[in-house]
Amino acid sequence: MTQNMSFPTWMGHIQQRTETALQSHLPTKAVSPARLHDAMAYATLGGGKRVRPLLCQAAGLVFQTSEEALDFPACAVEMIHAYSLVHDDLPCMDDDTLRRGKPTCHVEFDEATALLVGDALQSQAFQVLAEAPVDAVRKVEMIHLLAQASGSRGMAGGQAIDLAATGKNISLEELEFMHLHKTGALIRASVLLGAHCGGADAEALKNLSHFANRIGLLFQVVDDILDVEASTATLGKTAGKDAAQNKSTYVNLLGLAAAKEKAAELRSQAQAALLPLGAGGQRLRELTDYIVERSY
Amino acid sequence: MTQNMSFPTWMGHIQQRTETALQSHLPTKAVSPARLHDAMAYATLGGGKRVRPLLCQAAGLVFQTSEEALDFPACAVEMIHAYSLVHDDLPCMDDDTLRRGKPTCHVEFDEATALLVGDALQSQAFQVLAEAPVDAVRKVEMIHLLAQASGSRGMAGGQAIDLAATGKNISLEELEFMHLHKTGALIRASVLLGAHCGGADAEALKNLSHFANRIGLLFQVVDDILDVEASTATLGKTAGKDAAQNKSTYVNLLGLAAAKEKAAELRSQAQAALLPLGAGGQRLRELTDYIVERSY
Repeated sequence: MTQNMSFPTWMGHIQQRTETALQSHLPTKAVSPARLHDAMAYATLGGGKRVRPLLCQAAGLVFQTSEEALDFPACAVEMIHAYSLVHDDLPCMDDDTLRRGKPTCHVEFDEATALLVGDALQSQAFQVLAEAPVDAVRKVEMIHLLAQASGSRGMAGGQAIDLAATGKNISLEELEFMHLHKTGALIRASVLLGAHCGGADAEALKNLSHFANRIGLLFQVVDDILDVEASTATLGKTAGKDAAQNKSTYVNLLGLAAAKEKAAELRSQAQAALLPLGAGGQRLRELTDYIVERSY
Repeated sequence: MTQNMSFPTWMGHIQQRTETALQSHLPTKAVSPARLHDAMAYATLGGGKRVRPLLCQAAGLVFQTSEEALDFPACAVEMIHAYSLVHDDLPCMDDDTLRRGKPTCHVEFDEATALLVGDALQSQAFQVLAEAPVDAVRKVEMIHLLAQASGSRGMAGGQAIDLAATGKNISLEELEFMHLHKTGALIRASVLLGAHCGGADAEALKNLSHFANRIGLLFQVVDDILDVEASTATLGKTAGKDAAQNKSTYVNLLGLAAAKEKAAELRSQAQAALLPLGAGGQRLRELTDYIVERSY
């Protein structure tokens, strides 16, 4: 039983099964167009901490949902995440050349292919949800949730706000609004997809929604701290890039010490939101600690 | 009753209601991020012949489906089409500056915004299907269909094949394979979305699927002919661009006369596939004639 596993063992187990599930939901190179399918696999497989699938599986565990069923929303949200990284790295966006320690997709392949990789991964995410082994009503709930979280009032909207804010002084309120969309929407969706997949009731969804909002911001605050403190080698992407691009970050706005205090506060709020779930919230609690303490 | 309308009146009626429905399904500029929402409206509203919504509504009519219900798949497929045009026009793809007689999205706004417009329109398309006023089982069928038609084994895959083929000599077989994906997949989906929305049975779906495959190719053959024969002014996009970019087209491969014969042949095949539908297929028959005879 996975509930007797230590947290690191459980995490490794979920990461492994997510990798296998992603592979099974991506077309192989044997299918035309081979180069596009190769690039989709390059952008999705063999890297990443799989934080979103972990959150999805952990939230589904609250409702004793099977890992097999949760693989579907876990893969869908990870495909959306992978597509957003590929498009984010493009020259017209962040123009980044390194991601997870490897050349970014448009560097390894080409810009046009990277554009299509992102587009096709987004379609694939919705296809995977439509194929989930749960009833049609739950599938539609999950699809609606992921579409909202990905779109102009979710992740894509957050990226637009980020673009508009680059090089400008923004307030802490504006920074939170941006991150609640850019990073938060998909982190939040990861938790709620797991809950919807497991047939959560309105009360449980309310608690998980509050938790999900806090963990979304927490994830970003920690990311901003890591961008300052970690080296490029341990980070697997270009470190110090936010400061170099004059991006608004929690560290820029609050200073390092206050950003760390902010992280501690969000962590307590997230943990508090899990209390009503009792023992079922164990993995979510452990993931919260992991997100704060991860050092790459 | 719309069945007593002449074809041009019916077409105008559907185009008008599609415009209204698209407006209602797109976030307004009043909602943040305003610039992104402005650009999404720019890319979607006030232009285009709405061939895909027309096919969707016409296919739904076969099953006496309400126009109100069909607005949802009609808008969804048009949003996917609009996003594909925005991404197709980007500098790393076709690098086009004119679309429907207006500056392309990245020229009017900027490249990063155009990228996000396409991404967000795709999410919005799936959100609209998830909100359709039909039962969850039909919604999931429509979502699965549109996701497949848009992804790497549909439209995005066709664009990848097109990219790989540019500047190369390809066979007629390869050209058809490319167009069955690049243009055909979404045209086919337009017809089948209308049918699924109306609860078509397996037999009707088989007939409509055969019709949809023919009309998808027909649409592209006519497009290739128009690219040679029409002027930039009447076309609303840069004419002669295919030849200038050394793209494989039916005209390049077959010559103009044989391309026209091919169009006539596909038209007969499409019309023949509609015969089993009887009077219910009237609008689809009229649309087939319109697609061949459109002169912009």
